[in-house]
Amino acid sequence: MKEKEFLDIIKSYLNAGYIGDDCAYLRDLGIVITQDSLVEDVHFKMEYTDAYKLGYKSAMVNISDICASGAEPAYMTVALSLPAKTQNEFIKDFYRGLKDAAKNVTIAGGDITGSEKLFISITVIGKTAGRTISSRAHAQVGQLVIVSGEHGNSAEGLKKLLKNETCPEKFLNAHLMPEAERKLSRQIAENIKEPYAMMDTSDGLADALSQIANSSGVKLTVEYDKIPHDARVTKENVLYGGEDYKLVATVPESLLPQLEGAFVIGKVEKGLGVELDGILFTEKDINEKIFNHFGGII
Amino acid sequence: MKEKEFLDIIKSYLNAGYIGDDCAYLRDLGIVITQDSLVEDVHFKMEYTDAYKLGYKSAMVNISDICASGAEPAYMTVALSLPAKTQNEFIKDFYRGLKDAAKNVTIAGGDITGSEKLFISITVIGKTAGRTISSRAHAQVGQLVIVSGEHGNSAEGLKKLLKNETCPEKFLNAHLMPEAERKLSRQIAENIKEPYAMMDTSDGLADALSQIANSSGVKLTVEYDKIPHDARVTKENVLYGGEDYKLVATVPESLLPQLEGAFVIGKVEKGLGVELDGILFTEKDINEKIFNHFGGII
Repeated sequence: MKEKEFLDIIKSYLNAGYIGDDCAYLRDLGIVITQDSLVEDVHFKMEYTDAYKLGYKSAMVNISDICASGAEPAYMTVALSLPAKTQNEFIKDFYRGLKDAAKNVTIAGGDITGSEKLFISITVIGKTAGRTISSRAHAQVGQLVIVSGEHGNSAEGLKKLLKNETCPEKFLNAHLMPEAERKLSRQIAENIKEPYAMMDTSDGLADALSQIANSSGVKLTVEYDKIPHDARVTKENVLYGGEDYKLVATVPESLLPQLEGAFVIGKVEKGLGVELDGILFTEKDINEKIFNHFGGII
Repeated sequence: MKEKEFLDIIKSYLNAGYIGDDCAYLRDLGIVITQDSLVEDVHFKMEYTDAYKLGYKSAMVNISDICASGAEPAYMTVALSLPAKTQNEFIKDFYRGLKDAAKNVTIAGGDITGSEKLFISITVIGKTAGRTISSRAHAQVGQLVIVSGEHGNSAEGLKKLLKNETCPEKFLNAHLMPEAERKLSRQIAENIKEPYAMMDTSDGLADALSQIANSSGVKLTVEYDKIPHDARVTKENVLYGGEDYKLVATVPESLLPQLEGAFVIGKVEKGLGVELDGILFTEKDINEKIFNHFGGII
């Protein structure tokens, strides 16, 4: 996993307070910021998506990061690089998708340049006023582990898209047009009164659980049967499939009555790592499983 | 110029308050934000630069946009996409360059993905407290037109780099490692008491003058001999060469004693367009000249 080496180098140049979470929390400005790129033939192929869906997903994956931080998505800037042969219609459809995903997020800047392959880099800023901002290092012993939605649908959809096989629409949509958990993340961040961990499952549920457990120095004890999932999705995809953009959070039991669409899948205990149905997985175990599942590509 | 068509489509999707300037001014948050991308073989070639210089310039061009808005560059996030064959040394040198250019700008986030060609997208946030933010639409009749530095050096350097010819180091450095006008832009933004226009010359001096004149609905009357430039640089490069990242601003004469390194090249008058040595250039004239000079590539 060379990406891991690269990230370690980059971390050595980041200012210390900003390492670890998907968003940077700029306390003095009352904002969080995230920037992610999508590259043609690395993150998507035009054979199985279209400009509208691509715009929609590009915006949504960044909005999801802001939601998982606990902040309110507010502004977006968009850098688009595309081949000279691109048709006007493509840009229109892409921005239509972007705008539909953005909803009340203001698109405040858009830049365009040439390139051989399509390249999209989006920055989203979230407001922190009235919210408690999460950190993957802030899980507290005694909190419950909750998730939203169904896990593994996106990976199931991608598998079929890559093989050009038919499959239920919901799996395809889960991959091509994911939805950020705007409402549940808001309910948590506006009501919680203590430090907590929250992440989206962009890199899979097991990865998120492992990041939270190991960054916080705690053990997350989880029962597989409590993880919401479609019975047609393999256990491997439920645990290791990425890009569902569901929430994983650790919250006190007292918060549950204020949350809609949250499923308790386990609890935060003393120890280190993720214990799934009685078997403990260390950080190394999970990273190896992700590596074996994806052949080294994340 | 297809890019122009694309930009027109994008503008139709941007929220109205954010069209026109290189930075978006997010008043409620007290910040400006800019995001720009650099693509290998479109904006640079690895044959004539290196990882350190590329990192330096990538950060600096965005810092320059923030300075030209009048704000104080404060935070940066970096999205880097690179080929799998990239060596660790490259990332280290790139980030070293980035950090040296950033100076007191905090690098708050860094993301990395794969791609065939090198792709860099950087977002910089500037603080607006204690500063008056510029707009290219805010030039006022009666103000003076000032610029910083020497114009055309970057284009002169690029010309030689592309032909692999030797030339004075200062021209090469002007292109490969430009410097944002942090000090002069701060002196202007902290001391000015009225609306004003300010831009960097990323797309050339004539383009900046034309953008200011036509967005503000004024005539900028400029004398060529007052434009600071090295005598070895062609008039075409002084006027139309890009990527010098010098400042162009319209300020009241009373401000001049508080500014270091500013050269008065003309004044803001009633009318429309740029009048250079008595000859009026409309927006269309200048766009055609830029088009002819660069063969349609901007």
